[in-house]
Amino acid sequence: MIDSIYESPLYAIVNPKSIAFFGASNNFMRMGSMILSSVQALGYEGNIYPVHLQEKKVRGLTAYASIMDLPEIPDLAIIVLPTNIVCQTLAACGQKGVKHAIIVSGGFREAGPEGVALQKELEAIALKYGIRFLGPNCLGIANPYLKLNPTTITAEGPPGFVGLASQSGSFITQMFDYLHRNGLGFSAAMSVGNEANIDIVDCLEYLGVCPRTKVITLYIEGISRGGKFIETARAITPHKPIVAIYAGGSEAGKRAVRSHTGSLSGPNEIYDGVFRQCGIIRAQSIAELFDYALALGTLPRPKGNRVIIQTHSGGPGATAADACSRAGLTLPPLSEETVEKLQPMIPKTASTANPLDLTYSLNSEQNFFDIPDILLQEKNADILLAYFLSPGMFIERIMNEMGIPAESIPVERDKMLMEHADAFFSLTKRHPDKLIVGFTYRSLQEKMVRSLLDRGVPIYQDPERAARSIAAVLEYYKMRDGMTKTPA
Amino acid sequence: MIDSIYESPLYAIVNPKSIAFFGASNNFMRMGSMILSSVQALGYEGNIYPVHLQEKKVRGLTAYASIMDLPEIPDLAIIVLPTNIVCQTLAACGQKGVKHAIIVSGGFREAGPEGVALQKELEAIALKYGIRFLGPNCLGIANPYLKLNPTTITAEGPPGFVGLASQSGSFITQMFDYLHRNGLGFSAAMSVGNEANIDIVDCLEYLGVCPRTKVITLYIEGISRGGKFIETARAITPHKPIVAIYAGGSEAGKRAVRSHTGSLSGPNEIYDGVFRQCGIIRAQSIAELFDYALALGTLPRPKGNRVIIQTHSGGPGATAADACSRAGLTLPPLSEETVEKLQPMIPKTASTANPLDLTYSLNSEQNFFDIPDILLQEKNADILLAYFLSPGMFIERIMNEMGIPAESIPVERDKMLMEHADAFFSLTKRHPDKLIVGFTYRSLQEKMVRSLLDRGVPIYQDPERAARSIAAVLEYYKMRDGMTKTPA
Repeated sequence: MIDSIYESPLYAIVNPKSIAFFGASNNFMRMGSMILSSVQALGYEGNIYPVHLQEKKVRGLTAYASIMDLPEIPDLAIIVLPTNIVCQTLAACGQKGVKHAIIVSGGFREAGPEGVALQKELEAIALKYGIRFLGPNCLGIANPYLKLNPTTITAEGPPGFVGLASQSGSFITQMFDYLHRNGLGFSAAMSVGNEANIDIVDCLEYLGVCPRTKVITLYIEGISRGGKFIETARAITPHKPIVAIYAGGSEAGKRAVRSHTGSLSGPNEIYDGVFRQCGIIRAQSIAELFDYALALGTLPRPKGNRVIIQTHSGGPGATAADACSRAGLTLPPLSEETVEKLQPMIPKTASTANPLDLTYSLNSEQNFFDIPDILLQEKNADILLAYFLSPGMFIERIMNEMGIPAESIPVERDKMLMEHADAFFSLTKRHPDKLIVGFTYRSLQEKMVRSLLDRGVPIYQDPERAARSIAAVLEYYKMRDGMTKTPA
Repeated sequence: MIDSIYESPLYAIVNPKSIAFFGASNNFMRMGSMILSSVQALGYEGNIYPVHLQEKKVRGLTAYASIMDLPEIPDLAIIVLPTNIVCQTLAACGQKGVKHAIIVSGGFREAGPEGVALQKELEAIALKYGIRFLGPNCLGIANPYLKLNPTTITAEGPPGFVGLASQSGSFITQMFDYLHRNGLGFSAAMSVGNEANIDIVDCLEYLGVCPRTKVITLYIEGISRGGKFIETARAITPHKPIVAIYAGGSEAGKRAVRSHTGSLSGPNEIYDGVFRQCGIIRAQSIAELFDYALALGTLPRPKGNRVIIQTHSGGPGATAADACSRAGLTLPPLSEETVEKLQPMIPKTASTANPLDLTYSLNSEQNFFDIPDILLQEKNADILLAYFLSPGMFIERIMNEMGIPAESIPVERDKMLMEHADAFFSLTKRHPDKLIVGFTYRSLQEKMVRSLLDRGVPIYQDPERAARSIAAVLEYYKMRDGMTKTPA
């Protein structure tokens, strides 16, 4: 196990100061051109050296006919060339002194016996020149903190705390928007492709010591270095959570995986056992993978599994209670003390059982501070799960009725919503030991919820997802405690 | 079992030609005013008669000091008054000759012994005057086809085919936006509250014969008329699917339910048994409830469970394959005939296993018609599950690179996207016996996906949700066939 990212073969690949780019041209329809355009779009500030036999300029950048002509030895070579010239290109990089590469090009191990031979050749060249590389047949990396996105899709949303090591390139390149909509962002993401030289264990090791990564997510189709994977994961989970999705466990998953990366995958039970042994949380879908990451990366360590649900609607409260129960969480009754404190603030129709159902309330301000503040003081509970409807919609209607001019409403509404959001957010500071989680059926992009998501309050589209994510946090700490008690 | 909605006590409640409204005033902060404002906002075209002791006009409508003063006998009375004057108001309605009411006011059975007595009084008054009513303690109904929305929240999105009978008002009033974002809309929705006079079985019966309702959804906290429920559901499921969520099965769910509507709920196993016996699909969350409804309401009867996955990305393909496997679907290999037909259209790197992984393709047009058209001709498969990335994003980038002026790009892009959507949609007409389902990690609101959703092509945010929804369709027909073979 390494102690810092500087020791990792991935360091220069994820954090290059300069890049030689092979396969971009002034024809935008080429994959290489599209990747270079993504790099430029996000605003990478290091030097980029396109290498192109004919063109003097590629996408506005000075191009070089050969890697040998570059004015410096670049930290990284990105290769998006036809299969048959990849080996010679990597060799040229080696001659120049380049030590790190991302090989996007496919047509190797995944493409049959000829490809297998070609991949062996590639490995030999790397060995000869001391080159460490990601791929081939990968989509490289994304490092939003460095404004570096050498993938086929434009990056959206700010950086975040999710590290991803993936045996699928799509989940690096195609999830920016999904993550952002759900309140997340990558710290660093790596797609390993055929893992000829750097594999998912190397990525895991990097993410384990990456200070910007608070939660590691893994998309796994099959692990070849099993022992090393377990050793590495066991060294990480005591201080950083890992969530993994494994797609090769079912019959159809196994076949899909084989034709995708050529990996040999094992039965579900084996991976379940490995994950358990390592303290890794298993997710069953991509949605779960990132749902769990959101909770694990934002919530403090829970003291227990006792949830109070705050709602102003009976049905959402009951479904949330049911979802919590099924996820192994408990709902304690509110103590007399809490009920007494609540009494002056809640309508007669409210229920002070748990869920606390405020029903139709007149003072929405109290819903976002005073009432949850009391609930968070409850000594018999560890977690607050709050239902968010859409205060913006009500505020808008009320302002409209009050005769406030239509053009002023959005500004005034947003001001009020931000006050609500600020008040609710301040609870996370006042009660740092309690878990505060939300759910809504409205869009996560509505002002108040979005503002809370942006500040790291996990809010989910459905109470089921919220409850399961809370349960994942509890499971993580339980496994972690078990591991420290019984070393490997 | 009734033969038409005209025979139902709910007919005039869901389809009133005129409404007497109690509890709205010119003070918008009252719940009644807010409900009346929702009715006005959606544009209900029947007569509305606010009844108010002092005001001559309420929200711009002529108000009447007493129900007796109304120029006609209204089809429906909506009562949103303080608990203590609800009984006398219902009696006055009876004297006028009103036969149907929605009683929104709470403070009855759910509020303790005094409330129980008050509810009994309400029931007696109704009996005396032959009044049928929904509630008390409910949020009434929504009938978007009649532009009638007497709930606290503004309706959003067009009408649809989902009928909802709910023991929670929130799921009537708070789901308009959720449904619309997910490609759905209500045909009619009813919240039953305390079920003093009309219960969820009556609603089920209505929805069973409602011609606009293609799928019935139920939110259940506890059923009192068990025998009648089973009889009614068994009469419906052979021709119309029912999906139900039951929140009272877990310990916390049970307690939440008791303080919400005062229902006594039974253990999960009992409800599982009842649902199975009736051919009702059980959903575990609100998200599942409507996910299943989408598939059941849009897809034809499947001939089998054999799925072909079309993707251009390995990871999403593999997770979809794994999700299908776990949901009990199978992935047959493509026949030689199909592979032969595909060959000229797909790149060398593509995999013709199932998932068909097109990898990086140059001609996106073929992805939306020619290729899926071939897959839908495959004799060994019944279902196509297609992955949607975001063609709009690529088109935009390409147009930008081609130097098309920024201001023309959105129009040109949307034109192309609509051509893609039209082509893909036409496949549902060419292959009426096959199921066509999509999934994406992008927002469902992006142009092309949204356009398909609007035309009834079910597209889900995650392959897991798509696979489980397809499985729900298969389960429905399996149960239905089982029922017709073995009558009650």
